[in-house]
Amino acid sequence: MADSGNCYKVRLCCAQLGITLARRPVNILAGESRTAEFLALNPNGRIPLLQLPDGRLLAESNAMLGYLAAQSSLLPSDRFERALVHQWLFFEQYSHERFIATNRYWLHILGDAEFYAEQIKANEAPGYAALDVMEAVLAKSPFIAVGTYSIADIALYAYTHVAHEGGFDLTDYANIRAWLNRVEAEPGHIPMSA
Amino acid sequence: MADSGNCYKVRLCCAQLGITLARRPVNILAGESRTAEFLALNPNGRIPLLQLPDGRLLAESNAMLGYLAAQSSLLPSDRFERALVHQWLFFEQYSHERFIATNRYWLHILGDAEFYAEQIKANEAPGYAALDVMEAVLAKSPFIAVGTYSIADIALYAYTHVAHEGGFDLTDYANIRAWLNRVEAEPGHIPMSA
Repeated sequence: MADSGNCYKVRLCCAQLGITLARRPVNILAGESRTAEFLALNPNGRIPLLQLPDGRLLAESNAMLGYLAAQSSLLPSDRFERALVHQWLFFEQYSHERFIATNRYWLHILGDAEFYAEQIKANEAPGYAALDVMEAVLAKSPFIAVGTYSIADIALYAYTHVAHEGGFDLTDYANIRAWLNRVEAEPGHIPMSA
Repeated sequence: MADSGNCYKVRLCCAQLGITLARRPVNILAGESRTAEFLALNPNGRIPLLQLPDGRLLAESNAMLGYLAAQSSLLPSDRFERALVHQWLFFEQYSHERFIATNRYWLHILGDAEFYAEQIKANEAPGYAALDVMEAVLAKSPFIAVGTYSIADIALYAYTHVAHEGGFDLTDYANIRAWLNRVEAEPGHIPMSA
């Protein structure tokens, strides 16, 4: 799904690692991730879904990043640094994506601010809390998990750089904005529209 | 926090790996995870928080499991199998914990079914959907991620075995109940109360 941040993470990671992806569109708005055919591939009915050349299937965008980046500079080989990268991948899914990406889904993808008004409002404080955590960490470090660019930056960039589409204003988040620029300057960066 | 499933995961993993933990109680109901002192250690203000003997800090229970289990049989060394374990760790946080553990928190820990009635009701369908996914997978495999017991089983056991405290009825989930028994039969298993 072209404008899903979770799908974009995988495209961005592959672009930077020189891995060729064949994309198959899945229109979740038309229920295509909940058909019997799709559920046979991913019982959790979510996209993206990664199929390896030998047919094996992997779900969960951040698990895909770990798989694709294994033995690359995007995932440190040091045991503790690797754990820190995973710490931020879990932060992304639990404390960031489910508020920021969800509001973007309702506002930008579905475009139904009225129907979801109450839930959108409820997601604002925890969404900004996640941005506050990032802002504090990025005051001390150029990248989010370790001193160098990693899949944790890819994962958090995906929905942070379009947070405004979920109604989140980054004006007061100077460290996050500088980090977005650093991520975009990394070799092989591609935009979500690519 | 003794009755936090996320904290229990780490205790269970350490017990099975023969790693000694010193526990420091943090009473989240008294705001102890949001004090300036605690936020200096974990800016995201969540428990558990793991401190290594050299003082380094790691947040996110599932990142701790990956760190602790590295180079043990609880985390496969094969690149794809390891990715499958991570797939289920992300499933646990995104599709399971936030519905099942959250309802347990409101019903069992806070004991305020009335105040949270609307949110508890909203979490029921996605919580049962997560259990349905597990039930289908466990019909074909003795353990959740790969053919052997892994940290994915530890992570999902933590809140599944107390799902009834969140109002989730496992009567119709025979495969999950058999898997709970298999997990409890693993060498070195300890109950949440330990």
